[in-house]
Amino acid sequence: MPPGNTKPSPRIAIIGVCQVGAAAANALILGSVATELVLVDVKVDLRDSQVRDLSDVTYSRNSATSVRAGTHQEAGQCDIVVITAGSKYSLGQPSIDHMYRNIATIRSAIKAMKPFRSDTILLVVANPVDLLTSLAQELSGLPACQVLGSGTFLDSVRLRGLLAAQAGVAANSIDLYVLGVHGDSQVVAWSTATIAGVRVEKYLLPSIFNHADLENDCKYRSQSVIQVKGATPFGTGAVVSSMCSSILLDKRNVRPVSHFQKEFGCCFSLPVVLGRKEIIKTIQMPLNGDENADIAKSAMTLKGMIERIKEDQQA
Amino acid sequence: MPPGNTKPSPRIAIIGVCQVGAAAANALILGSVATELVLVDVKVDLRDSQVRDLSDVTYSRNSATSVRAGTHQEAGQCDIVVITAGSKYSLGQPSIDHMYRNIATIRSAIKAMKPFRSDTILLVVANPVDLLTSLAQELSGLPACQVLGSGTFLDSVRLRGLLAAQAGVAANSIDLYVLGVHGDSQVVAWSTATIAGVRVEKYLLPSIFNHADLENDCKYRSQSVIQVKGATPFGTGAVVSSMCSSILLDKRNVRPVSHFQKEFGCCFSLPVVLGRKEIIKTIQMPLNGDENADIAKSAMTLKGMIERIKEDQQA
Amino acid sequence: MPPGNTKPSPRIAIIGVCQVGAAAANALILGSVATELVLVDVKVDLRDSQVRDLSDVTYSRNSATSVRAGTHQEAGQCDIVVITAGSKYSLGQPSIDHMYRNIATIRSAIKAMKPFRSDTILLVVANPVDLLTSLAQELSGLPACQVLGSGTFLDSVRLRGLLAAQAGVAANSIDLYVLGVHGDSQVVAWSTATIAGVRVEKYLLPSIFNHADLENDCKYRSQSVIQVKGATPFGTGAVVSSMCSSILLDKRNVRPVSHFQKEFGCCFSLPVVLGRKEIIKTIQMPLNGDENADIAKSAMTLKGMIERIKEDQQA
Amino acid sequence: MPPGNTKPSPRIAIIGVCQVGAAAANALILGSVATELVLVDVKVDLRDSQVRDLSDVTYSRNSATSVRAGTHQEAGQCDIVVITAGSKYSLGQPSIDHMYRNIATIRSAIKAMKPFRSDTILLVVANPVDLLTSLAQELSGLPACQVLGSGTFLDSVRLRGLLAAQAGVAANSIDLYVLGVHGDSQVVAWSTATIAGVRVEKYLLPSIFNHADLENDCKYRSQSVIQVKGATPFGTGAVVSSMCSSILLDKRNVRPVSHFQKEFGCCFSLPVVLGRKEIIKTIQMPLNGDENADIAKSAMTLKGMIERIKEDQQA
Repeated sequence: MPPGNTKPSPRIAIIGVCQVGAAAANALILGSVATELVLVDVKVDLRDSQVRDLSDVTYSRNSATSVRAGTHQEAGQCDIVVITAGSKYSLGQPSIDHMYRNIATIRSAIKAMKPFRSDTILLVVANPVDLLTSLAQELSGLPACQVLGSGTFLDSVRLRGLLAAQAGVAANSIDLYVLGVHGDSQVVAWSTATIAGVRVEKYLLPSIFNHADLENDCKYRSQSVIQVKGATPFGTGAVVSSMCSSILLDKRNVRPVSHFQKEFGCCFSLPVVLGRKEIIKTIQMPLNGDENADIAKSAMTLKGMIERIKEDQQA
Repeated sequence: MPPGNTKPSPRIAIIGVCQVGAAAANALILGSVATELVLVDVKVDLRDSQVRDLSDVTYSRNSATSVRAGTHQEAGQCDIVVITAGSKYSLGQPSIDHMYRNIATIRSAIKAMKPFRSDTILLVVANPVDLLTSLAQELSGLPACQVLGSGTFLDSVRLRGLLAAQAGVAANSIDLYVLGVHGDSQVVAWSTATIAGVRVEKYLLPSIFNHADLENDCKYRSQSVIQVKGATPFGTGAVVSSMCSSILLDKRNVRPVSHFQKEFGCCFSLPVVLGRKEIIKTIQMPLNGDENADIAKSAMTLKGMIERIKEDQQA
Repeated sequence: MPPGNTKPSPRIAIIGVCQVGAAAANALILGSVATELVLVDVKVDLRDSQVRDLSDVTYSRNSATSVRAGTHQEAGQCDIVVITAGSKYSLGQPSIDHMYRNIATIRSAIKAMKPFRSDTILLVVANPVDLLTSLAQELSGLPACQVLGSGTFLDSVRLRGLLAAQAGVAANSIDLYVLGVHGDSQVVAWSTATIAGVRVEKYLLPSIFNHADLENDCKYRSQSVIQVKGATPFGTGAVVSSMCSSILLDKRNVRPVSHFQKEFGCCFSLPVVLGRKEIIKTIQMPLNGDENADIAKSAMTLKGMIERIKEDQQA
Repeated sequence: MPPGNTKPSPRIAIIGVCQVGAAAANALILGSVATELVLVDVKVDLRDSQVRDLSDVTYSRNSATSVRAGTHQEAGQCDIVVITAGSKYSLGQPSIDHMYRNIATIRSAIKAMKPFRSDTILLVVANPVDLLTSLAQELSGLPACQVLGSGTFLDSVRLRGLLAAQAGVAANSIDLYVLGVHGDSQVVAWSTATIAGVRVEKYLLPSIFNHADLENDCKYRSQSVIQVKGATPFGTGAVVSSMCSSILLDKRNVRPVSHFQKEFGCCFSLPVVLGRKEIIKTIQMPLNGDENADIAKSAMTLKGMIERIKEDQQA
């Protein structure tokens, strides 16, 4: 047997296989993105159930992907590690509690995975995603360009979809990005939004097109789903599958994902060229002054919060 | 606008969008099987959350499939109606309660959908699947060949997958069917099981291959998943997507699905040619005496149970 | 059998199944774009050979697409008619002869297909494509929005691909269109070309990026292929398959395709929203003065040529 | 950059890019089977034209596959080398001349590629395929299990397709193999042919089903295509793409392909498990006496011819 074939490749590990992790695994299988999926969860019964349920999907598709349970150590040796741990939000739970629980979860997961394979890519999809991605970047010890968060990718996808329905064009014919810190302070880059080179404001009649309404619709759709289901598993799963595909096949698609911004000392979303070889390259969009200011403001708020959390935890 | 384009086609309705229904919808979107998915559920909040979460998948894939909430009346006008209502099993719940609840659910769902479009196909995936398919066939008033149940399709897929791993061949190179009444009394047609024309018993060494172990593994895998998750959403979703694709594209794949057996007066699984035009055609496999006897026995038990239920409900 | 199933749908006819037509059919089968392909060619032996060779592809893929020989009359009743007749260019043949031969071919093909189904879409891929599309639009008697030519779609795809390699991004992350009359006078809309909202000139270093070189490379690549092979069958086949998919699935992708421009009285390429329901909608890109002037100039030249040809043929 | 990414993987080389080689490349791109295709041909103009034409396909699909011209030396370092050289048959050319020309072509191609990467797989699709595969196996010096020929795979695919149309079932629900030496003496394994475990003779009415007619139709379809086009490029391309996919993804599909039979000292088709790790494993089908005798007879004839050719060439 030739040396290159001793272990299946490429392999993706998923840490945390509740709703979101399982939906991501399902999308990865249906899209034939990886050769092996390694599911990791401290809840052993849940993990094994997901392995069995998802194995039926691979059997059904005659997929070359295999699914198995694994340890954190094994996850740290995969091509990509998707961290969904703590991604479910319990109704009525104070946000601050949820945040601290997720920080603790990611901290222990990363500790258990270390040392990472030198070229492993971490992909954080738990919330608050930019804060957790920033922490993961420090805790993992991996080069900054190997630690990504789903950031505003799903927001961008959804906003394009909503706008596409109004404009009567395909979503992938719309050039539009949601940027910055995912959540209440995320910023839509309207100033650069185009359809075939035509500014969106010129393409659509003002009577049917309203910036603020679309932005709010985009933001509150996920909130309303989270209120009922505790997470947005299918949308997030589709986005995770797309990102893994861009990385493993070195597709170099431009995507808005959370990654380290040297200027601000934390992670948030700007468009990157997403591929394997140089992994990521940030694109500096020609945003207008307000957009830049809004992004900077939320980045500084995030940075401040990260500092406080680090102090708290060292205290 | 030409007349053929007045409404999207083909359309699939999903009645009940808990875990199983939502996973089926997700698989249908990722496989681009339908043009429109109509989600129906009496829990309006859940239904709307699923529409929003799944819409993000269609946006992400630039899929031509649209997802929307709909009424039972609208469902009855679709090409295929997938009935997953009541498919979740609560831990500790007596089976008999679960069964009566599901019967009530299907009864009211079918009543609310009537009158059906004359060529609508019903696909029942709730459990006990053969009993519910049999009732759906009577209640719907549709021709017998338009009412199907998922039956032992997932069992067959899983058993092929488990055997494939032992034999070192692709699952779709194994010709093997699980038949009869889905559940404890389902029958594996070992007598006709082959790999490239070679009897499975000859292909595999007796030391590694054990009929009973494989059968039990197949049966108890879904039970163990149901104990933890209440359902097998991903496997079932993949199988539903495959069946819908065979039907809508008139693929004529041979599949073991539950359908009406005139001789026994109820529905259970035998292989059918699954397509659109003549919809289904049963294949009479050359089973051995034991296999035929086991199938007949479980069919008669099922028929008896159906009679009792009908008497109960008329009383 | 339900009434909607009396004939396979959707159907695509291909008129002329030399290299280009056969490659288009092959791409349509591999992409599962249609339910039935109807191949039409006056060379009966060639046509039947292509049906047999392509049938093996459908068998190999277990495709639901069937391929059969058909008449011009049958073609006129299909959802889309792809006209590749005369698309092969013989080495050393005077362009003017080639043009007149192709005009005669299209004229007789359209005559033989009439009357068309009222919602049939004609897709012309023979060259000179804009001239032939313009004539097809008049000769067919179909509404202007139902007659398209491949125009500069392949040029746009190729230029994006060449630029993608220089920029290190995916081709579909580049927003760039080649417009106008396909051939020597086609116009690259550099003024609106962007990567994630960044002007291409800003994205790429001037040292590696040269407008004129890329334009020439794009133009002369097809010429060099045509010199050796007489046509660009694979590239054209891929583009035809993509256009048919946008139309039949009503995807509404923005594509630069040749279509009737009222202002100029002839067909050439501007971006359109390509779908089924309203079929096409032109997008008015914010081109600069030079670009607009170049397009207008070539359009007027084309219009003049069309007038002369019509006079010739009436004389 | 991690060491594993220094060269694209997996890579497929195609030796000879006339009709068949180019169609195979096209199918491989449309199916996203490889990361890099290396086209090799002594006709440099043709090779470069194919690279350009096929590059447009990769641009059009945003495919991660790249296509480039390469040398025989580079081909010998790829994961799979598809040898289509000499696959075109000129009308009126004596078979014996065609055979000797193809032998010479393969001999020089293999010489130019040596030394091969130790785990390279040779896939011969030129005719007479079993003779050329046998010679390639000796000349290459590669282990027997790394040298394959397309053999009767396309015949099997076609016969299933023709039978599927008669039986009204999907081709992939038919278990049927054409075996032995591809061509006039190939053998259909009717004795093991089944649909869902039912013998084909029982499934189909004798009035519509005729062994000999189907066998002849299968054999003469390719001959009639070759008479007109000189080759069966699309069917062969689809089959090559399928084989490469089974190998690279280690799918372990059972396929009838030409490979070395120790007992006979030459290559012909029997079903194999086609994968990456152990590459191939022959399956001994339970054929009847006549079938076994016919296969043995044609194998011995082939072996005799190989011996004579080797003597000729040494003389």
